[in-house]
Amino acid sequence: MNKLENIVSLCKRRGFIFPGSDVYGGMAGTWDFGPLGVTLKKKIMDEWWKYFVEQRDDMYGIDAAILMNPKTWLASGHLDTFADPLVECKECKSRFRADKIADGISESVTTEEFLATHTKCPVCGKENWGAIRKFNMMFATKVGAVDDDSATAYLRPETAQGIFTNYKNVVDTIYPNLPFGLAQQGKAFRNEISPRDFILRDRECSQMEIEYFVAPSTWEENFEKMRALQHDFLENVMGLSKDKIHEYEVPASDRAHYSKRTIDFMFDYPNGEEELMGLAYRTDFDLQNIARESGKSMEYRDKITNETFVPHVIEPSIGVERLFLAILSNAYTEEEINGDKRIVLKLPENLAPYKFCVSPLLKNKPELVEKAKEVFDKLRTKYINVTWDDSGNIGKRYRKQDEIGTPKCIVIDFDTLEDDTVTVRDRDTTEQVRVTIADI
Amino acid sequence: MNKLENIVSLCKRRGFIFPGSDVYGGMAGTWDFGPLGVTLKKKIMDEWWKYFVEQRDDMYGIDAAILMNPKTWLASGHLDTFADPLVECKECKSRFRADKIADGISESVTTEEFLATHTKCPVCGKENWGAIRKFNMMFATKVGAVDDDSATAYLRPETAQGIFTNYKNVVDTIYPNLPFGLAQQGKAFRNEISPRDFILRDRECSQMEIEYFVAPSTWEENFEKMRALQHDFLENVMGLSKDKIHEYEVPASDRAHYSKRTIDFMFDYPNGEEELMGLAYRTDFDLQNIARESGKSMEYRDKITNETFVPHVIEPSIGVERLFLAILSNAYTEEEINGDKRIVLKLPENLAPYKFCVSPLLKNKPELVEKAKEVFDKLRTKYINVTWDDSGNIGKRYRKQDEIGTPKCIVIDFDTLEDDTVTVRDRDTTEQVRVTIADI
Repeated sequence: MNKLENIVSLCKRRGFIFPGSDVYGGMAGTWDFGPLGVTLKKKIMDEWWKYFVEQRDDMYGIDAAILMNPKTWLASGHLDTFADPLVECKECKSRFRADKIADGISESVTTEEFLATHTKCPVCGKENWGAIRKFNMMFATKVGAVDDDSATAYLRPETAQGIFTNYKNVVDTIYPNLPFGLAQQGKAFRNEISPRDFILRDRECSQMEIEYFVAPSTWEENFEKMRALQHDFLENVMGLSKDKIHEYEVPASDRAHYSKRTIDFMFDYPNGEEELMGLAYRTDFDLQNIARESGKSMEYRDKITNETFVPHVIEPSIGVERLFLAILSNAYTEEEINGDKRIVLKLPENLAPYKFCVSPLLKNKPELVEKAKEVFDKLRTKYINVTWDDSGNIGKRYRKQDEIGTPKCIVIDFDTLEDDTVTVRDRDTTEQVRVTIADI
Repeated sequence: MNKLENIVSLCKRRGFIFPGSDVYGGMAGTWDFGPLGVTLKKKIMDEWWKYFVEQRDDMYGIDAAILMNPKTWLASGHLDTFADPLVECKECKSRFRADKIADGISESVTTEEFLATHTKCPVCGKENWGAIRKFNMMFATKVGAVDDDSATAYLRPETAQGIFTNYKNVVDTIYPNLPFGLAQQGKAFRNEISPRDFILRDRECSQMEIEYFVAPSTWEENFEKMRALQHDFLENVMGLSKDKIHEYEVPASDRAHYSKRTIDFMFDYPNGEEELMGLAYRTDFDLQNIARESGKSMEYRDKITNETFVPHVIEPSIGVERLFLAILSNAYTEEEINGDKRIVLKLPENLAPYKFCVSPLLKNKPELVEKAKEVFDKLRTKYINVTWDDSGNIGKRYRKQDEIGTPKCIVIDFDTLEDDTVTVRDRDTTEQVRVTIADI
């Protein structure tokens, strides 16, 4: 197994991530977070919220509905352009993303270009293709009891539009000073033709996005500020190795037409470099679209100069699952210590699902169990994320806690009953020290 | 305006809740949370998670995908029975929920029973109805690039099935002792024919559900424990008035066929008593359905007795929006103090979006502003949820902070510069006391 497969296996074995609808044979492109995964995911999202919203004066939260008025996607261009090149094998009727099964072509490949690659069908091996058509990746549904096209709505393919559509309401109620940001965490859906790479390319993901509204002339300085903040967050709060993060300056030819500058933050995932997040200067593209489609002014009046203008936007956008996998990949370590092989998740302390594991040395000695419970209750009142483990022997427990990333294991033994000291074992060094309970 | 309309108005005016897709004229049955609303909603959800999951040894989290294998809804019965009686006016083609436009009939009304009520069309006033048909409330969509019925999936109409389908994976990885609970927070979708009553009956809501798995013979004691916990949470953590919560013991004839006991917790909303949450004993109905549909055993082996059985389930289920509105209704107060009318949200301190508001008495005195910023920074480092207000005059600021429920306003004036004391004004009593900065 390669490293990604090892991580997928650990995720299932320890209750981080299960395949979606596993009991029914799965549901392609969906994943369910188990007990450990929920805790880690929640910590990631809470740290992001604290860093980018709660600790700042210039950021406000938004939590918009997933089902939005379809005009949203007309104005944003998603109805026309949010599409992948779909090609069907005329022999076996299998359908594929053309740019993923042929080498050296892009998303905007034409039928002629594709046929010239002489790609064989990955399922039946023949070469008999239909024309390429644009497959819109938005999930459509019908809303309400009226059964005509006017009732068609879409699951949002990005959270960003839920922010832009609320810009005016926020300006009219909160009167924020420019620059200010609106931040949102929430689900987004993309009907990927071929979901793959574990949680990297799934059909349902959680996004964390900020639209940072600035005076047009200040976009460059604000872009640089946002760029520095992303690095600080990824490296110092999420604990990702600086040397695994690479900036890719997207050239004009590859940028979305509305973007004047985009940096993709790439990460060294186990299977290679992949996009972790994006930072884009979106100009006033979205607010102008909304103004045109809604007929309402998106202008901002500067409180001091009284000047009016439509703000420009800097957008840092990150997928929780991509960040989750980056954190696991960064932490996952196989190593040998004194001849023993072990798997250990070297998660930063602020993200580890549990800070401490408390154990009685032997589970059939009531005096040890009682003392251990005492320590457990005391620690949990203070730190909340504390786990209890009295299964198997101590070695097996360490092995398990290493795999779920618990930084410290505390073991209560017979000496504890005498002198109130416990063994504290460190996850990363495996060193054990003797500490009094009061000093933990 | 009645009280509900006043609350809706306050929610929009102060940035708690905006109509969904407001800028495009709305999207029926959806609501967007603004800056203040996000903060309150997050606090509600975090308090629930802390109370029911983090502070307990017997609870674990789950976060399942919204798109699930369609077999889920076949097994659970939703494909057959999750439907409302839809009736169409043959004159104007308007469609309605039959049991909502006619008096004295239930959800299971027949065409004959409905016609006998001689209801007139609420839109055109005529009486010319088609037959009643069952309208399934699940939103359907197509998943993947294959365009046949096999690709139809549904937005989950409840979070509960995301828990039941993960029961086996959790038992196989975490080995929890019985009784144990699996808790989930997440979105659920219902295609209501006529969404109404603000956020009480919306098409998209956030649920917080626990499936508590117990040995069959212990269901009654566990039901009582869960019941007491719900009251404690609603009254002592959410701060709802005990006298506004009423238990409704659902009679056997009105219960879902699998439930042996259900208590609806009703709340005195502004427009009358409505369901706030439900507590149901679901027997082993769901796990048996999954066992049958998946062919996999849902048996649990008791670690001590080695006995095997399918656990029974106690389910407390609450909608975040219903709880949100209960909290706002409970807190919303119009009163007269010394001849001045005011609106005040008497939110409990743990839920108020901001704990403190810090203000300089005058915004054009740099020495006051500087000192106030100092106090603001100090408090925010400690409490996070602190807001700054230097708009308008002091009276207007108090009025605003009252409306958003900030418990304490701290004002920095010229005396502060002399003796380091500030005015602390209490939201509920409007009393002002002089306190040294160190004592806040």
